[in-house]
Amino acid sequence: MRYKCDKILNFWSDKYKYQIWYRVEMAFLNAFKGVVILDLEIRDDDVKDIQEIENKTKHDVAAFVEWMEQFYEDCDWSRFIHYGLTSSDIVDTSFTIIMQDVNFTLNALLDILIDKLGLLPDSNIVGRTHGQIAEIRRFKDKIKQYQQILKSLKLSIPSEGKLSGSVGDHKHVTEEICEKALNIFALLQTKMTDGQVISRVYYVKYALEWANLAAYIEKIATDFRLLAQSEIGEVSEYFADDQIGSSSMPHKKNPIILENICGNARMVKNLSVSALDSVVIWNERDISHSSMERMIYPQASNLLGYIISKLTDVISTININVDIMNNRAKENFDITSSQEEMLKLIDHGISRKEAHKKFH
Amino acid sequence: MRYKCDKILNFWSDKYKYQIWYRVEMAFLNAFKGVVILDLEIRDDDVKDIQEIENKTKHDVAAFVEWMEQFYEDCDWSRFIHYGLTSSDIVDTSFTIIMQDVNFTLNALLDILIDKLGLLPDSNIVGRTHGQIAEIRRFKDKIKQYQQILKSLKLSIPSEGKLSGSVGDHKHVTEEICEKALNIFALLQTKMTDGQVISRVYYVKYALEWANLAAYIEKIATDFRLLAQSEIGEVSEYFADDQIGSSSMPHKKNPIILENICGNARMVKNLSVSALDSVVIWNERDISHSSMERMIYPQASNLLGYIISKLTDVISTININVDIMNNRAKENFDITSSQEEMLKLIDHGISRKEAHKKFH
Amino acid sequence: MRYKCDKILNFWSDKYKYQIWYRVEMAFLNAFKGVVILDLEIRDDDVKDIQEIENKTKHDVAAFVEWMEQFYEDCDWSRFIHYGLTSSDIVDTSFTIIMQDVNFTLNALLDILIDKLGLLPDSNIVGRTHGQIAEIRRFKDKIKQYQQILKSLKLSIPSEGKLSGSVGDHKHVTEEICEKALNIFALLQTKMTDGQVISRVYYVKYALEWANLAAYIEKIATDFRLLAQSEIGEVSEYFADDQIGSSSMPHKKNPIILENICGNARMVKNLSVSALDSVVIWNERDISHSSMERMIYPQASNLLGYIISKLTDVISTININVDIMNNRAKENFDITSSQEEMLKLIDHGISRKEAHKKFH
Amino acid sequence: MRYKCDKILNFWSDKYKYQIWYRVEMAFLNAFKGVVILDLEIRDDDVKDIQEIENKTKHDVAAFVEWMEQFYEDCDWSRFIHYGLTSSDIVDTSFTIIMQDVNFTLNALLDILIDKLGLLPDSNIVGRTHGQIAEIRRFKDKIKQYQQILKSLKLSIPSEGKLSGSVGDHKHVTEEICEKALNIFALLQTKMTDGQVISRVYYVKYALEWANLAAYIEKIATDFRLLAQSEIGEVSEYFADDQIGSSSMPHKKNPIILENICGNARMVKNLSVSALDSVVIWNERDISHSSMERMIYPQASNLLGYIISKLTDVISTININVDIMNNRAKENFDITSSQEEMLKLIDHGISRKEAHKKFH
Repeated sequence: MRYKCDKILNFWSDKYKYQIWYRVEMAFLNAFKGVVILDLEIRDDDVKDIQEIENKTKHDVAAFVEWMEQFYEDCDWSRFIHYGLTSSDIVDTSFTIIMQDVNFTLNALLDILIDKLGLLPDSNIVGRTHGQIAEIRRFKDKIKQYQQILKSLKLSIPSEGKLSGSVGDHKHVTEEICEKALNIFALLQTKMTDGQVISRVYYVKYALEWANLAAYIEKIATDFRLLAQSEIGEVSEYFADDQIGSSSMPHKKNPIILENICGNARMVKNLSVSALDSVVIWNERDISHSSMERMIYPQASNLLGYIISKLTDVISTININVDIMNNRAKENFDITSSQEEMLKLIDHGISRKEAHKKFH
Repeated sequence: MRYKCDKILNFWSDKYKYQIWYRVEMAFLNAFKGVVILDLEIRDDDVKDIQEIENKTKHDVAAFVEWMEQFYEDCDWSRFIHYGLTSSDIVDTSFTIIMQDVNFTLNALLDILIDKLGLLPDSNIVGRTHGQIAEIRRFKDKIKQYQQILKSLKLSIPSEGKLSGSVGDHKHVTEEICEKALNIFALLQTKMTDGQVISRVYYVKYALEWANLAAYIEKIATDFRLLAQSEIGEVSEYFADDQIGSSSMPHKKNPIILENICGNARMVKNLSVSALDSVVIWNERDISHSSMERMIYPQASNLLGYIISKLTDVISTININVDIMNNRAKENFDITSSQEEMLKLIDHGISRKEAHKKFH
Repeated sequence: MRYKCDKILNFWSDKYKYQIWYRVEMAFLNAFKGVVILDLEIRDDDVKDIQEIENKTKHDVAAFVEWMEQFYEDCDWSRFIHYGLTSSDIVDTSFTIIMQDVNFTLNALLDILIDKLGLLPDSNIVGRTHGQIAEIRRFKDKIKQYQQILKSLKLSIPSEGKLSGSVGDHKHVTEEICEKALNIFALLQTKMTDGQVISRVYYVKYALEWANLAAYIEKIATDFRLLAQSEIGEVSEYFADDQIGSSSMPHKKNPIILENICGNARMVKNLSVSALDSVVIWNERDISHSSMERMIYPQASNLLGYIISKLTDVISTININVDIMNNRAKENFDITSSQEEMLKLIDHGISRKEAHKKFH
Repeated sequence: MRYKCDKILNFWSDKYKYQIWYRVEMAFLNAFKGVVILDLEIRDDDVKDIQEIENKTKHDVAAFVEWMEQFYEDCDWSRFIHYGLTSSDIVDTSFTIIMQDVNFTLNALLDILIDKLGLLPDSNIVGRTHGQIAEIRRFKDKIKQYQQILKSLKLSIPSEGKLSGSVGDHKHVTEEICEKALNIFALLQTKMTDGQVISRVYYVKYALEWANLAAYIEKIATDFRLLAQSEIGEVSEYFADDQIGSSSMPHKKNPIILENICGNARMVKNLSVSALDSVVIWNERDISHSSMERMIYPQASNLLGYIISKLTDVISTININVDIMNNRAKENFDITSSQEEMLKLIDHGISRKEAHKKFH
């Protein structure tokens, strides 16, 4: 994998998944039969063992449950592991917990980006609308807008789990037991069940937040790419001594990380909105959503972590050419003050239409 | 237009848009110069007049402002119309107000759907996972899940406007005036500006909520289509006396409205997520987002209103074949109780693995 | 509708649709019973009459057939109208014919664009990779590349129809009759049937070609927007005397048509790929595809026609600032010739790595 | 990676990529300086060495060229490696070659699927439109339609390469040399260049073909899922002895591979159409497309190979319950022959409308 955010990827490893599954099954045993919660760290060897069983059973949760039963076969309570539960009870509740980890981490990465943006120097800068020089503003204000919007795009944290059985009717596991078990993770019993599973709309909501954040990351990266063009030259991406910009044109110093961020941001958008295709499952569930989700959620969140981190790197090392910014603002003072002049005429009693014509 | 929700479409008419633009300009004049707010109902003729001006100026807000100036040319304050504002101040603030109307209305339509679902009769019904008969449940519980999920998908209401000028720095219109004007509509000053415009991520958020709701509407419609298949026959769509099901096979009674809902729901999803392409605008703004938005928001919300209403119609008139539902549940009692039997064995001290094998 | 290409829209009118339906039914009667083909121009009143019947029957083809039977009720052969056919036989065969009209027209519009591009003046221009000035090239060569790619994106013309009955097995209409009838339109009998309908993959193929063409139109428009930026100024969009660039900044001359083209191109892409959602229909057909197609194909082709025409307008009137282009090329001669200098060193026997370092 | 098609994945390995890059550089040397083409098998160690260089240079082609120069440093011609070429000349030409391998292989897999479909037994089967039993047809005819459509979706094979330098103007590498080098691979010189790179529309075309094929694979899988429903039971997916259908309901035999195919098919569609976002690059190129393409093309083609193979597996082992199919056809003979009866009445001189009413 070329574009990685290790912090995020760790949450999507099989090992971590089994760790969470273990904790959910244990919490259930505690709530159901008062079994004391035993801590257990899933090791690489356990992962192998579980997957060996899965190769036979072709069913991942069944394999995990079998492994756990073997592990605790001497305990009288081991036959109550997964009692009355359906696979999705474990898988979905764990999915919520993993998504919490992921979104907490993405938010933390976002905070760093927001902080680093705050360290950029101030300057006058020409505003640009339609690629045309408009009114003069402060670079700091431009940056502050990015910060405010990024803050408003902080990701929500999911909070709902489900331990309600095959068709979600608590036939074998009462609401009380479910509540008690979920409580251990500070999770709520979801009301959003499509029978066997948590309705995928519940998770899609979070994926769509990723898409919107990625879109805005691409917007910021595009702005900096625009400012980095040769003829504008107000910023330039940091360039390491050994780095080669172009194999054919040795003078080039290209903003390739910003371009890379744009490409990856588009992937986050496309992957995330794909999650919408997981919603239409048949009646109490089919499993067509599962393969999609195994790709979409890890990949989209990994790439989102990656582009946030990469943009943070770019921002932390970018050259802001304050002189160029300031000089361009100065040089364009006249044309950019056309509104001001127009408003002065209006203040002096001339109609808006007349005033506007004078600068047209 | 074949698929219409008039309640929603009205909000997207030019007439209504000008009406809101008028109110926003008037609120600004009140905040800025203490002009008494004059009520004015935009008429069809006004729409024509404004668009005639636009044909010359090629700029919709400029045309509207010119029309308003002409209308009030005898008033001394008329030269302060739009003073220090940029077009987007009016357009975006009005867009928020229109989106409020739209989402309030969609939520009201959703409430009716939720209510109508509650009127369906109860019955036993086999749960179906993977298209296979699973445990027996109550039809009422199945319906209740739809209701709960639809409730959770109620749409958020936007609340932010902007009156801050060309590059969003309040150079000519102070924050105080802006606040005072927005206050008249109970709107907040947005912090989400990309210079000249409200950042499109702000609106995209609402579009993405539409997409998720449409996905779930499609899920419900698909479930009913599945239950309506000849071999299942637990429900059937109402069929008018004059209606023709098939031009070639005269006996057919096809669930075409449910199928139509599915197709239109996919359109809502696709249109809504397209809004993500409006986020990346250049620096303080370009106008590439505008053409997309003129299509996406009216069309997606209209179709969303349409499918909610159509599903409400279907639900209100659907035949629920309670006998078939009940009988199938009865006939499948044995196979659907395999979990129960397995759990009994576990209760009696047999290990899960052994118990599971007996029913495999 | 704000963005219109009348040439394309006409093909999607109800009137034109009924006209084609009429011809297909007539061709069938000719092939089946040797009925002499009677020409008939569908008038606005006919459209109303047909739709009045549809309001009762809720089935568009059944309504049309009833209308046609009434029209020819005195003819003995009138009872053989639509004999043994299914609605989709008429609808899909007509859809192919309409798509032919549409794609022929779009190709013709594309030819005009390609021609107009050829009229642009020549100049030196700096190549730009990553927004950075690269080697100098000829503007004519740049334009020629657009032309070649646009040529390669010429749209395919569909050619297949279907008159094979309810489940596509020619039970009541033989292959010979079908062939004879389709022959009148120079259409082939399709092998791509999903039972009752032509498989939607057949039409999706054409929609996807639209998406790719739209993407390239956006690429060209984006290039010109980049060249039109204040600091680059090598081109500028034509600006009418009465036109208002900005309601707040009266000096601005913004490339708004190019931006509008970009937005609409994204819509064409999004709408066109949505057609993929029409492929998965159940067994011999369901009608979930129909509502989508009623929106996707007319809207996407209309907007595609619109952006091709608009780009043609822009190209026909654009200011090419040859002096600025030439001068910038001259000024950057040194840095853009770094590759040439490097290659000279290699020619003289220096290794590539050493040569590259000298310009790094 | 959980869903793998090794045959396809091999083409996307770094090792294979370097192998093809090597051959392209060698073909160029042959065409340019008459260097005898030396065969060289890239080994795992070479991959490591090349990537070590890349860690320094941050440029993959530059790293590869440096490695190749070192490898042949004793050869006088080594300084002409990559002479006058740009990275994209190597990368894009190689991409075409790899895409040829991929599409040839996918077509071969598709041929196997088409063959296996031909081995299914025949039977009467009720046609189903709108989920409702329609006319009776032959199962063989239904299958034959799948085969014909799959054949028509066979993938095109790309055939164009580019060796034309930084801005695509053959400044340092003549058209003759380019042609000679590409000839070695039976490739044509592309006319579809966006300056430095082959226009991405060229590759997108192939991605869009994947999307359409995947959509149809999903359609077939959905049809079989529908036929596998408990109440229909005309087919059932093969179930291994050790396999566990449900951890909670031990009796279940779920068509999970078909569901998995549906989910993965949606991923192929979504990933493939995402490629459209790679088209809009700035002027002579930017590299925002590259990160997307590194994910989209390998993943989409891998998953496409996977679902074709999986569907082949399902088809090869599926239970076709001919008795159920035949019996249902027999039982529904009456209602499915309503069209036939209606047509008989028309043959006897009754008007279509009268005839239709009798079965309504």
